[in-house]
Amino acid sequence: MKDKVRIGYIGLGKRGFAVLEKNFAMMEDVEVAALSDLSDERLSRMQTFLRENTSHDPYLTKDYHDILNDPTIDAVVIMIGWSGRPKIAMETMRAGKYAAVEVGCADTLDECFELVKTYEETGVPVMMLENCCYGRREMMVLNLVKKGLLGEVVHCSGGYHHNINEEDIYCNFENIDIPHYRLGQYITKNRENYPTHELGPLSKVLSINRGNRMVSLSSFASKSRGLKEYAVNRFGADSKWGKIDYKQGDIVTTVITCAGGETVVLTLDTNLPRSHYSRGFSIRGTKGMTNEDRMSVYFDGQTEDSFKNEEAMYEKYDHPLHAEYVKAGVKEGHGGMDWLVCRAFIESVKNGTNTPIDAYDTAAWMAVGPLSEMSINKGGAPMEFPDFTNGKWQNREPVVKCKYCLDEICEDKSVSVV
Amino acid sequence: MKDKVRIGYIGLGKRGFAVLEKNFAMMEDVEVAALSDLSDERLSRMQTFLRENTSHDPYLTKDYHDILNDPTIDAVVIMIGWSGRPKIAMETMRAGKYAAVEVGCADTLDECFELVKTYEETGVPVMMLENCCYGRREMMVLNLVKKGLLGEVVHCSGGYHHNINEEDIYCNFENIDIPHYRLGQYITKNRENYPTHELGPLSKVLSINRGNRMVSLSSFASKSRGLKEYAVNRFGADSKWGKIDYKQGDIVTTVITCAGGETVVLTLDTNLPRSHYSRGFSIRGTKGMTNEDRMSVYFDGQTEDSFKNEEAMYEKYDHPLHAEYVKAGVKEGHGGMDWLVCRAFIESVKNGTNTPIDAYDTAAWMAVGPLSEMSINKGGAPMEFPDFTNGKWQNREPVVKCKYCLDEICEDKSVSVV
Repeated sequence: MKDKVRIGYIGLGKRGFAVLEKNFAMMEDVEVAALSDLSDERLSRMQTFLRENTSHDPYLTKDYHDILNDPTIDAVVIMIGWSGRPKIAMETMRAGKYAAVEVGCADTLDECFELVKTYEETGVPVMMLENCCYGRREMMVLNLVKKGLLGEVVHCSGGYHHNINEEDIYCNFENIDIPHYRLGQYITKNRENYPTHELGPLSKVLSINRGNRMVSLSSFASKSRGLKEYAVNRFGADSKWGKIDYKQGDIVTTVITCAGGETVVLTLDTNLPRSHYSRGFSIRGTKGMTNEDRMSVYFDGQTEDSFKNEEAMYEKYDHPLHAEYVKAGVKEGHGGMDWLVCRAFIESVKNGTNTPIDAYDTAAWMAVGPLSEMSINKGGAPMEFPDFTNGKWQNREPVVKCKYCLDEICEDKSVSVV
Repeated sequence: MKDKVRIGYIGLGKRGFAVLEKNFAMMEDVEVAALSDLSDERLSRMQTFLRENTSHDPYLTKDYHDILNDPTIDAVVIMIGWSGRPKIAMETMRAGKYAAVEVGCADTLDECFELVKTYEETGVPVMMLENCCYGRREMMVLNLVKKGLLGEVVHCSGGYHHNINEEDIYCNFENIDIPHYRLGQYITKNRENYPTHELGPLSKVLSINRGNRMVSLSSFASKSRGLKEYAVNRFGADSKWGKIDYKQGDIVTTVITCAGGETVVLTLDTNLPRSHYSRGFSIRGTKGMTNEDRMSVYFDGQTEDSFKNEEAMYEKYDHPLHAEYVKAGVKEGHGGMDWLVCRAFIESVKNGTNTPIDAYDTAAWMAVGPLSEMSINKGGAPMEFPDFTNGKWQNREPVVKCKYCLDEICEDKSVSVV
């Protein structure tokens, strides 16, 4: 067991900066040893922050291979744009270091297979940092499911309902010629490009890769209107961005069927006007249901109105990890879930165990992007969902027996929440 | 223009009784001339009610052909169980009488084609009595769409979210050997069996059959658990009903794509515990959205929270027909929508016009049942949605130019709301 984990950190864009600044850099058992980015300005901005606010004093490099070749580094956090993450994750694992990747999909199915192969050949763990798996609502629902309080789960839904036109696509108004890297995806691809905020927690609810697996996926894209209309209104019809015909449909609906007979509906919803952010997280079981948009938990036979009863439910059914976290008073990044997912990774590195969102989970979740694109291109034809575990899903045990484990409720006291 | 419409009424089950009792029997320009049912008891119960409470004194017959052969009857309302409705509707049309059918699907696609053929050959109108087309929420949303206040519509969703295990399946507890006719469907079929409460209003929002049409349909059924669990708990594992393996999945998700590039998601959700009834009616446009579960209407740029703002929206955006109806103080059946859909039918008969939910609409909506069954049986493969208009959808005008028309907002004063 390591006392301190030395991490290398690759990618210091908006999200990369925030996750480091508020999470890894604030952990007493982490040393931020090295930073890599292609931009000198980003590197020095992060360095300045760390020097002024923490005791970390990482070296800087524009070539991330320097980090992979550094034998003193235990783990690498990869926060670059969507494309390229699987490649660097695999290089990291081949270098014998734990790899963490920010949420997102693979470009191709091959990358997902390669990731699993790399894990199986090296034995080095990888983890998608899917923060929403540690969201308070998602964890409470997981707690309800694992305790059987919703009965047998039959159907789930979720979505990424977030109008990101301004915030995460045309975000760089100082230099609009350099928009967010997402824009390139929206111009050239039509797919479920961001499923893991809902699919991650739903996979844990459904015991995917541990007793269950996804067997087919179908995706359907609406026409593309939102981004064009936004660009025309914001920059003008004759502007560079107003003239583009975006390929990405505004709303992408994906239906996944599971070996256990459950259905899962995912919705990508990022370019139309919206009243509110939502992950649309909803579970239907034989003894109850939960519904994010109504902020409600309902048990069969309950007579009181469940509309907006979620707050009261937290008092009774908070996941033990989240309850402990709230008690400890740590509140960083997205209501704590960023902190918890980063802790989960660090605890795995310290303990030398596999991660709670491991190579099989990461590969399966990342596969939704290319699978959905294939289905859309074939008019909604169902795609076979690959079994990345090659049959092992039927008998796999929970990956990590500690409180960060999402496969069972574990109140292990040896692992720290702070 | 007729002063009084003489109707024959076939099917006096729970729903048939209620629609007649509270709607047609209360209209001054309707004469209930004949009743048909296979049950003497039902016939005499209805007759007694009419004699005691109204001036109607219909003759009774167990053979509905008596009604079709009666030259004094103008229109026939068909309220028997799902199966058999298309057949009697077609016989009615061939007998030269307007036909109204209660909501529901056809058993087969052939019946839908036959219905259209019968309409085209006879010129006699038919109408599905889809009451939810005249629901206050649905009409307000239609009003918003027709006025362009939600921009271009891109995506819609809706569902029949209603746990009917007790109420509409095992409803006859005095004689449990005669459950609701739905039970037979749930034992033998796995399909989207009840889509029209949401698909009807959504079709009007999307101008289906008048400038737009449905082009493909894919359906996915979850495992079947709810009805079995209910039957085991209610009647015992060894009871007749507890021993059945029900074929119908608990949650059926259907995705429809439209010629205009819109996507539509329908959910059948009738057998699991639920907190609330909902038609999940939601519209996404380039300038705004509506969401039934949040009871909200949101316009792009709006700063006030839209959560539960629907009541205030009714004051501003009530559909003119519904506003007039509320003003007239008539409130019967499901908040008025039963009354309005029955009025729409009677006005069409009186005026000798086509109906606002005509043969093409009725056939298309009824086709979802068999199409979804075919898709589910083929693992979610997309089914081509037949064009029942044979190309006419591209240039069809609104069917009825009166205030009951759902294809445009019409404030025609010549037609009565009461």
